[in-house]
Amino acid sequence: MPITPEQQAEIDALRASPRQTLRAVSEGMEEHLYKAYPVLDHGFVRVIDYMGDDAAICQAARVSYGKGTKSVQNDEGLIRYLMRHWHSTPFEMCELKLHVKLPVFVARQWIRHRTANVNEYSARYSILDREFYIPQPEQLAAQSVINNQGRGEALTGAEAERVLEILKGDAARSYDHYEEMISDEGKQGLARELARMNLPANIYTQWYWKVDLHNLLHFLRLRADSHAQYEIRVYADEICKLVADWVPFAFKAFEDYRMGGAALSAGALDCVRRMLKGEEVTKENCGMSAREWRELEEVLEG
Amino acid sequence: MPITPEQQAEIDALRASPRQTLRAVSEGMEEHLYKAYPVLDHGFVRVIDYMGDDAAICQAARVSYGKGTKSVQNDEGLIRYLMRHWHSTPFEMCELKLHVKLPVFVARQWIRHRTANVNEYSARYSILDREFYIPQPEQLAAQSVINNQGRGEALTGAEAERVLEILKGDAARSYDHYEEMISDEGKQGLARELARMNLPANIYTQWYWKVDLHNLLHFLRLRADSHAQYEIRVYADEICKLVADWVPFAFKAFEDYRMGGAALSAGALDCVRRMLKGEEVTKENCGMSAREWRELEEVLEG
Amino acid sequence: MPITPEQQAEIDALRASPRQTLRAVSEGMEEHLYKAYPVLDHGFVRVIDYMGDDAAICQAARVSYGKGTKSVQNDEGLIRYLMRHWHSTPFEMCELKLHVKLPVFVARQWIRHRTANVNEYSARYSILDREFYIPQPEQLAAQSVINNQGRGEALTGAEAERVLEILKGDAARSYDHYEEMISDEGKQGLARELARMNLPANIYTQWYWKVDLHNLLHFLRLRADSHAQYEIRVYADEICKLVADWVPFAFKAFEDYRMGGAALSAGALDCVRRMLKGEEVTKENCGMSAREWRELEEVLEG
Amino acid sequence: MPITPEQQAEIDALRASPRQTLRAVSEGMEEHLYKAYPVLDHGFVRVIDYMGDDAAICQAARVSYGKGTKSVQNDEGLIRYLMRHWHSTPFEMCELKLHVKLPVFVARQWIRHRTANVNEYSARYSILDREFYIPQPEQLAAQSVINNQGRGEALTGAEAERVLEILKGDAARSYDHYEEMISDEGKQGLARELARMNLPANIYTQWYWKVDLHNLLHFLRLRADSHAQYEIRVYADEICKLVADWVPFAFKAFEDYRMGGAALSAGALDCVRRMLKGEEVTKENCGMSAREWRELEEVLEG
Repeated sequence: MPITPEQQAEIDALRASPRQTLRAVSEGMEEHLYKAYPVLDHGFVRVIDYMGDDAAICQAARVSYGKGTKSVQNDEGLIRYLMRHWHSTPFEMCELKLHVKLPVFVARQWIRHRTANVNEYSARYSILDREFYIPQPEQLAAQSVINNQGRGEALTGAEAERVLEILKGDAARSYDHYEEMISDEGKQGLARELARMNLPANIYTQWYWKVDLHNLLHFLRLRADSHAQYEIRVYADEICKLVADWVPFAFKAFEDYRMGGAALSAGALDCVRRMLKGEEVTKENCGMSAREWRELEEVLEG
Repeated sequence: MPITPEQQAEIDALRASPRQTLRAVSEGMEEHLYKAYPVLDHGFVRVIDYMGDDAAICQAARVSYGKGTKSVQNDEGLIRYLMRHWHSTPFEMCELKLHVKLPVFVARQWIRHRTANVNEYSARYSILDREFYIPQPEQLAAQSVINNQGRGEALTGAEAERVLEILKGDAARSYDHYEEMISDEGKQGLARELARMNLPANIYTQWYWKVDLHNLLHFLRLRADSHAQYEIRVYADEICKLVADWVPFAFKAFEDYRMGGAALSAGALDCVRRMLKGEEVTKENCGMSAREWRELEEVLEG
Repeated sequence: MPITPEQQAEIDALRASPRQTLRAVSEGMEEHLYKAYPVLDHGFVRVIDYMGDDAAICQAARVSYGKGTKSVQNDEGLIRYLMRHWHSTPFEMCELKLHVKLPVFVARQWIRHRTANVNEYSARYSILDREFYIPQPEQLAAQSVINNQGRGEALTGAEAERVLEILKGDAARSYDHYEEMISDEGKQGLARELARMNLPANIYTQWYWKVDLHNLLHFLRLRADSHAQYEIRVYADEICKLVADWVPFAFKAFEDYRMGGAALSAGALDCVRRMLKGEEVTKENCGMSAREWRELEEVLEG
Repeated sequence: MPITPEQQAEIDALRASPRQTLRAVSEGMEEHLYKAYPVLDHGFVRVIDYMGDDAAICQAARVSYGKGTKSVQNDEGLIRYLMRHWHSTPFEMCELKLHVKLPVFVARQWIRHRTANVNEYSARYSILDREFYIPQPEQLAAQSVINNQGRGEALTGAEAERVLEILKGDAARSYDHYEEMISDEGKQGLARELARMNLPANIYTQWYWKVDLHNLLHFLRLRADSHAQYEIRVYADEICKLVADWVPFAFKAFEDYRMGGAALSAGALDCVRRMLKGEEVTKENCGMSAREWRELEEVLEG
C-alpha cells in the first residue's frame, strides 16, 4: 500500500481547498493534483504543482502581452510547427513538479537526467521505511540472449520461486539489521548515515522532482521507450498520461514527431529512396551493417 | 511609454478573470500578475506566472505528503537554516516567469546567467519598434578613475548635451535607415535578419525569462549589487520588490545572509580576530594587499 | 584583416613550443591549434585547447582502466552504436575550447546555446575595435516571400548599392561618435559601459567558448543546417572541419545519423510504409498538413 | 586492494608513452595522470585528463591571442581578484576528468552536483565485483545527539563488533545470492538489471566524472567541509591535493576566499561592528537566534 490513511487525509485536505488565481490554469491537470497514482508494488507518482498550459507555450513563442492565443486552431498548428522544427525554448516555459516514490535502483537511472531539480528524502536525517520492490512473477525475466542490457523470457518454476525467496529474505534480514544497528535502546546506536549502507537497492526512496516540459518530454522519449528497463518505464508511462491531460496539443505533437516517428540515418534514407524507385534493396546491397539493416526493417514494418 | 493602450487592455483582461486552482497560491504575487512595472525610459518587468510559495520550499525540504507546514514560525526557521547552510535545492522548487522589456546591451549582460529559460522577440521574424534607451542626465556618467569597469561623476554642461545629441541622433538615423532597407515598396526589401545589424545596442528588445528561485536569488545578488551597471541594477531592484511579496521569508533570509552580509577571506577573518583581541591591525601589518585591506575597512565600517 | 602581425606573432610563438604530455593527443587537432581560420570579413575561429579523442569516447563508455580501445574497428563500431541510440554521455567526455571573433548579432544567436562556458571581451572594461561586418553583395538578400524568417534572392542594382552605403556610413559614424564620447581629452569622457550603447549590431566582438562534444554536435546540427542564418552557418561550417579532424569517427557518425539523416513523424512514416506497399500516396490522402507533405517530399527526393 | 595487477599494467603503459602537444601543460598534474590514489578500503581517484592551467584562467579572462600571461605575479593577482569578486567564468575554462571508484551510497550524494558529465559502470550490462565498504572501527560512529544528520562518538566494544559482523555478513550473503541468481548454469539466469537490486549500498561502483574548475571548487567547498559525511569528504580531500598541484594559484585563492574564510550574515556583521566599537555583545543582546550566535562565536574563535 503506497499511501497510509494519514497521508491520504493530508492529500484530501489539499484537494478540498480550491483558491482563486489569475494564472494560467489547466483543467485537465487540476483533476490530478496531489492524487497518488500507484506504480509498481509500493511506488507512486503525484503532481504537486504545474506552471503553464498549451496556450502558455504559444504565448512565450510570440512574446505576447496577453494570452498569446489567436485561436485554438492556430495554437495547435504553432505547437506542431515548434515541435517539428526542434524549437525547444517555448516548451521550456511550462514546468511540472512531481512527488515520486520509487526503488533506489530506479532512482539511480532517473537521476542521470540532470536538467531537473530534485529534493530526495534524506537517509542521513531520517529513518527509511520497510518497503522493498519485489517483482511480479511475469517480470522475473532472464538475461536476454540477444541484447547485453535487456531481458528475455520470464523465469519459471523452481528458479522463479528461489529468486523471490532470495529477494524477500535478504530484504527482510537487511532491514531487521538496519533497525538493530540504529536502535539506541541500551546502547549507543549507529549513525543513520552509516546504517543505511546495509540496505539493498530495491528499497523505496522518494523525492520531489521538478522539470520543464521540454526536458520532461526528452526524459519520456528515452524512458517510455520499449528499450528502457521495465521498472522505470512504468513510471514514464504514468507520467505520459498526466502530460496528455495537462498540455494535450503538445503531447499529441510529441507522440507524432518523437514517440511514433523514426530517425533515419543517411544510409537508411538512401535505402528508402532506392526502394521507392523500385530497386530491390537487401541486407547485402544496403550499404549498412547487419544490425542497422535489421533496425531499418523493423521501422519500415512498423 | 512602455505599454500601449491595446497592450494595457490585454493585461486588464487577464487580470479580470480569476479562476479556481488547487495549487499553492501566493496572495502577494497575485497582486502583481501581468502588471507592467516601468524600468528605465521604455522598459518594464511583468510577472507572467509563478510556481510555489514559502511553504512550498519547506514542503520540498521535508518531502512531505501534505502542505509540509508545521507552523508559520517553523517554516521561517527552516528557510533561514536552509539559506544559511547553502541548501539550495528546496529554493529551486519555486519558479518565476517574467516578461521583460530591456535595452539590448542590458540583455547581453543578463543572458550570461545561463540557468534560465528564455524566449526573445525575434528580429529575424518581426520588425523591431522604434524605442531606444536614452539615459537621464544624472546617469550620463564619466569613466571611473578608480575602477576600470565603473562610472565616476556625471558629465556636465556642453559635454552632456553633446552626448545626448549623439545618442538621439544616431538612434533616429539608424532606425530610419532600418525602415528604409526593409521596405519593399517599389523594391525588393532587405531581409529582416540582415537589416537588424544596423541597429544600435540601446534599442529595446523583450523576452520571456523563466528561472527557479535559487538561481534568481543568485542573479539578484550579483545584479542588485552596487558594483553592477546601473541599467541592469534597476531591473534587479524591481524584481527584488516582487520576490519580497512572493516569498517573504525566503527574501528576508536572502537579505540577511546574502545581500546584507559579507564574505570574509581567511586573511580578513584573521584580522578581525586580532582586532577583537585588542591588537592594532593596520594596512602595514594586516598581511593582505592594499586593495583587500581597503575592502575590509569598508565592510567593517558599514 | 582579422589578425594583426603582433597577434600572428603570438600565435606563432605558441605553435613553436611543443611540450610533452601523457594525455590523449589528437594529431589531427594539433595541426589546427591556435591558428586563426577566417570567417566573414573580419571574424575567425581558433582552437585554443581540446580534451580527448575518439578513443576517449570509448574509454568512458567502457569505464576502463587503460585506453579503453580494443581495436580501431571496435572503436568505430561502438561510437556508431552510441550515436545511433542517443547515448550522449560518452560524447560529453570530450571538450573543445575556441576563440571566436564574430559580429554581435551572430553572438546573440550563438549564446542561446546555454550548455557552454563563455568569456566575452568586456566593453565595460575595454574599448572595442573599429571593425564591422559588411555583407558581400551576393549575401545582400531580400526577405523571403515563403519563409517569414528566411532570405530570398540577392538584392540588385541601386537597391544593393544603397544598402551597402547605409551600412558602411552608419557604422563609421557611430564609431566616430563612440570615440568622441569616450575621449577624455579636454573633457571628462563618457563611461565605456554607456558609450558602447551607440554601436550597431554588426560590430565585431570576441569570446572564448568552451563546450563538450555532445553539446557541440547539437549546436552544429542546428547551425550548420540550411535553415540557419548564413552569418552563423559559416562559423558552424568552419567548426565542422575542425571536429572532423579532431574526432573523425564521431564526426562521421554524426554526419550519417544526424546531419545526413531525417526524422520522420508518425504520419510521415505511415506514408512511407504505404508507398512501399505500392499505394499511391498524395497530398490529399496523406493525412498530413500541406506543409508536412511538402517537407516529406523534399526528404524523399533528397 | 583497489587495483589488480592487470589494471596497474594498463596504467603503467599509459604513463610510459609521453607524446608531444602544443596545448597548455600543467607539470604538476602530469605527475598524477592515470595513477590510482586509494580512498577508503577499495576506492580510488584517478586523473584521466585535464584541460588548462593557471595561465589559461588569465588567458580567458583577458580573451587574449597568446598565452594571456603578462607575468607570473600579475597572473596570481588577477586570479585572486577573480575569485574574490565571484567572477566565475574564467575558472570554467579549465576542465578535469576523473575515474573514481566509490561506494554506491557515496555516489548517490555525489551525483546531486548536476553540473558535471558522468559515465557510470553499467550493472544492466556488466556484473559488479564483490567489493564492499566496511568502515574502520574509528569510523563506526553513533548518531549525533546534537545534529540530526551527523555523527557522534565511535561505537565501542560488543556493539561495534556486532555492527561489523552484520555489515560483513549481509554483504557476503547478498553477493552470494546475486551470483546465484544471475548464474545460467543449468538454469535460465536472472537478468542482471534485476539481480542488482539485491545488492546493498556499500557495494562499490565506478565512474568517469568530468567537471569544470568552477563547479569542481563548489563541490569541494561543500564536500571537503567538516559537515560533510566522512565517506565523501575523504574523496574531496584527495581531489584537493590534485587541484593544488594542477592550478596552484587558483587553489590558493580558493583556500583563502572560500575554505578558510567565513560568510557573515547582516546580523553577524552588525555584532562584529558593535564589538569593534567596544560594546559587549552577548547571546542576549546580539539580535540573533541562539544557534546563529553559537555559529558566530565559533567563527570568531577560529
